[in-house]
Amino acid sequence: MTNLKNDLFLKACRREKVERTPIWIMRQAGRYLPQYRAVRAKTDFITMYKTPELAAEVTIQPVDLIGVDAAIIFSDILVIPEAMGMKLEMIESKGPKFLDPIKNINDVDRLKEIDPTKDLRYVLDAVSLVKKELNGRVPLIGFAGSPWTLMTYMVEGGGSKNFSEIKKFIYNQPQAAHRLLDKLADAAADYLSAKIEAGTDAIQIFDTWGGLLSPSDFVKFSLNYIEKVISQIKKEKEPVIIFAKGANNDFNQLAECGADVVGLDWTVDIGKVRDKIGGKVALQGNLDPTILYADREKIKTEALNILQSFGNHDGHIFNLGHGILPDVDPENAKYLVEVVKEESKRFHIK
Amino acid sequence: MTNLKNDLFLKACRREKVERTPIWIMRQAGRYLPQYRAVRAKTDFITMYKTPELAAEVTIQPVDLIGVDAAIIFSDILVIPEAMGMKLEMIESKGPKFLDPIKNINDVDRLKEIDPTKDLRYVLDAVSLVKKELNGRVPLIGFAGSPWTLMTYMVEGGGSKNFSEIKKFIYNQPQAAHRLLDKLADAAADYLSAKIEAGTDAIQIFDTWGGLLSPSDFVKFSLNYIEKVISQIKKEKEPVIIFAKGANNDFNQLAECGADVVGLDWTVDIGKVRDKIGGKVALQGNLDPTILYADREKIKTEALNILQSFGNHDGHIFNLGHGILPDVDPENAKYLVEVVKEESKRFHIK
Repeated sequence: MTNLKNDLFLKACRREKVERTPIWIMRQAGRYLPQYRAVRAKTDFITMYKTPELAAEVTIQPVDLIGVDAAIIFSDILVIPEAMGMKLEMIESKGPKFLDPIKNINDVDRLKEIDPTKDLRYVLDAVSLVKKELNGRVPLIGFAGSPWTLMTYMVEGGGSKNFSEIKKFIYNQPQAAHRLLDKLADAAADYLSAKIEAGTDAIQIFDTWGGLLSPSDFVKFSLNYIEKVISQIKKEKEPVIIFAKGANNDFNQLAECGADVVGLDWTVDIGKVRDKIGGKVALQGNLDPTILYADREKIKTEALNILQSFGNHDGHIFNLGHGILPDVDPENAKYLVEVVKEESKRFHIK
Repeated sequence: MTNLKNDLFLKACRREKVERTPIWIMRQAGRYLPQYRAVRAKTDFITMYKTPELAAEVTIQPVDLIGVDAAIIFSDILVIPEAMGMKLEMIESKGPKFLDPIKNINDVDRLKEIDPTKDLRYVLDAVSLVKKELNGRVPLIGFAGSPWTLMTYMVEGGGSKNFSEIKKFIYNQPQAAHRLLDKLADAAADYLSAKIEAGTDAIQIFDTWGGLLSPSDFVKFSLNYIEKVISQIKKEKEPVIIFAKGANNDFNQLAECGADVVGLDWTVDIGKVRDKIGGKVALQGNLDPTILYADREKIKTEALNILQSFGNHDGHIFNLGHGILPDVDPENAKYLVEVVKEESKRFHIK
């Protein structure tokens, strides 16, 4: 294991004392960076994440250019269903699409069991490469989609307006749904274990579509399987972050799923959430991503509001409440990082 | 004023004692009904709501066919900006689009002040017609979009993925934004006053996009103007419902905006919300609309869960947590109405 020069992010995940609040930005290796677009111009999205050298290059860009306190491996959550045998096609400006969505239990049974060390070797190779090139500058985060979120894509085929297909699937074919969720939980746990083995220092589980569910269905179809993933990950002390966007009904439940950190979107007040759940997990977030469209004064005010709301505690990782938007000025992202690094110091004086 | 044969809905809005929980369904006059599609097949959406006879016909359909306890006038929230001078075009299967979205303060200043009794006469005529044809069977609800939600459509031009334009507008042209919100609040209040004058028995304000905002921006850009609308409506004792979808951060704030009823989407537990705010307002909702894709057993279980969670109190209007989806079987909607009418009785025995 590399000795990290900057381990603020990992310390904050573990609620240890830090001298300032660490920051990284969801989708920080992304289209808002001209340097990313330059790589992307030469190839397609899928080839990019399947080529370790290209994935490594864009993973490291925001560390150099924006100054974030952690890198996150450039990849896609759909690599797991793809490795299980589902054909993936990238529709330009529309996002990824599965050509043959899951329709019934036979489709579920046809999915392959995956061996991440073989089927997802390209991700593990990218991890090794990034670790080598980062050379301990900042920690590296690995990630996976939650079983519920993966299943949503696999049944809908892609994004959706009303998410009718996935809802019909869980209500009318619950047995098939639970069997698929079980398979995905096993696959995600194996995949995340392999990533940790390959060198990632922390894990984030993205439950992008958790917010589609009613409180009771969220527990039944999403949270239970997130717990299963986390309990099965083979790891030492690498922290796990759960980010269930829009699933804001019961943060105490989320805080008890086994994760070390709970990510928050921008529609909740981080201080209130902390009041509710106390210090049992660290919190990550929660700036409205569109604040980066504003001027510096507004960016600073809003960043300060979040630092102030969280208050003088350990266990906060600054981030946006969702991915950075492609038309944001990179200078604004850089300014946000500077502001958080500087202004957070006074919230860590004990 | 007509004597109502069924005033359960109005009583529940006022938290008066009722013998069972009343129910209506958002977008109940809509595409899931073959009888609606038959009317729609002969004309376009805009002509439909601008023709009082057609609007009245589809408004009454769900009262006859589904058995709901209230009618809601068939119309569109964009009638206000259209009356203010914005050109509206219906893009088939994509929804309404403004041809020239608002870009700056000059565009705001160019908008006309409206006189609803002239500019929106067709809505008021539809209201009168429905009242006559309903003949007191059930109450009639009138509605408007919140100033924030109207402004979002006016600036984005239509629906949006990231809502970048509206966010840029409020952060970078706050003066223009507040001026527009003020105008819209005045227009909405005048419009709703005219609707009440024409005979509607209650009002719902739809803040469809309130959930896009951070907690502090929600107050600044949405809630403050909802309060302004409500305080300016000329009315006797017609109840006002506020439904701010996804704005679930602070129900106590919402409960104090002047509305009699707070609508809930399906991502919160209605019983917990009631525990938080007590009985100071009635609550409306909150079944996941996609539950209507399930079989009768599941529909019944989930309806019972909501009745049980709200418990043995007055002040609940059953509804979905969002509009009914176009591909729902009308028989399932009808079954839900029957179940709520029958099963809710035991929660009203004192």
